[in-house]
Amino acid sequence: MTSHTELSMPAYGRGFHLITRDILERLPDLPADGLLHLFIKHTSAGLTINENADPTVRIDFESFFNQIVKENEPFVIHDMEGPDDMPAHIKSSLVGSSISIPIHQHRLMLGTWQGIYLCEFRNAPHRRIIIASIIS
Amino acid sequence: MTSHTELSMPAYGRGFHLITRDILERLPDLPADGLLHLFIKHTSAGLTINENADPTVRIDFESFFNQIVKENEPFVIHDMEGPDDMPAHIKSSLVGSSISIPIHQHRLMLGTWQGIYLCEFRNAPHRRIIIASIIS
Amino acid sequence: MTSHTELSMPAYGRGFHLITRDILERLPDLPADGLLHLFIKHTSAGLTINENADPTVRIDFESFFNQIVKENEPFVIHDMEGPDDMPAHIKSSLVGSSISIPIHQHRLMLGTWQGIYLCEFRNAPHRRIIIASIIS
Repeated sequence: MTSHTELSMPAYGRGFHLITRDILERLPDLPADGLLHLFIKHTSAGLTINENADPTVRIDFESFFNQIVKENEPFVIHDMEGPDDMPAHIKSSLVGSSISIPIHQHRLMLGTWQGIYLCEFRNAPHRRIIIASIIS
Repeated sequence: MTSHTELSMPAYGRGFHLITRDILERLPDLPADGLLHLFIKHTSAGLTINENADPTVRIDFESFFNQIVKENEPFVIHDMEGPDDMPAHIKSSLVGSSISIPIHQHRLMLGTWQGIYLCEFRNAPHRRIIIASIIS
Repeated sequence: MTSHTELSMPAYGRGFHLITRDILERLPDLPADGLLHLFIKHTSAGLTINENADPTVRIDFESFFNQIVKENEPFVIHDMEGPDDMPAHIKSSLVGSSISIPIHQHRLMLGTWQGIYLCEFRNAPHRRIIIASIIS
């Protein structure tokens, strides 16, 4: 059985944002056993799971991703929407557009240090839609 | 309930190829609610979701991935199958070998600009097998 | 229906480790049709699927990931746990914390050359926990 909840997220600026609590508060009751699947309906943002405690980790994420996927590369053709656009597409495919987390005893089986990140790769804040699917 | 369909894809050359329509045409009827899981059975190709409208985006994908994972790095040991082989394995793990998309009202819940890419990382065209699993 | 098995893995040192056989030996009987979902409960390790035959591939994986995500970058803020810590978080998000593989006829539908890698990104060996979920 699969049920979906559409979550309209706050418009975050560029960066990596911890959304675990926000997601959990908006989900229906979780089943005894299952899987939570989160899917972001955009090609210049992404979802990933990483460290949930120290905010400097998320700042370093932004720096590392800018180092791996640089702006203003001379080979870029698709540049109409600005220098942040094409790198945003690449970063989106590097982290991916979905994550999935096992559910047990009506709770997410996240590790102690694991949190859910919304990765906003565009400069301008965007409202992003996430589809939360519960499979049980 | 899970059902699988094995899809033998056309032999694409190196690059990022939009396969959304091809996949949809070959799938059985989608359930009212569920999840579509696509899995590519190869280690030098991958699957990702990204921009579906402007073909230059896919050209820029090729350029960026070649920048991130360079050929002929002096440290490479596994080079018997040519300079494109080991980078192909790395790229495959960067994008991943599976994607999953929520299904609602018998349709994929893709965002307006989202399409499915088959990423062929070898120079020579290869016929790739994708397992499409519908979970409902 | 979803059932989970918690797998405590051996403490591997830094690198990419083939764990397909170890995982299979510890799973309960697989259903006729379904999906295997593996989730690692850590933010400085990851899971991926790649080449299962030549051990030099896994050595080259280590070299390439160290090239893509370098240690001792001047911009790093989160460095209390050593120079391998923050790069480990980034690499974890590049490969991802989960993989999923279709199940058919009570077997994983892996391609001939596909194996499951546990990616240990910290220098010191760590015992990692993987949650194996069978969806059928």
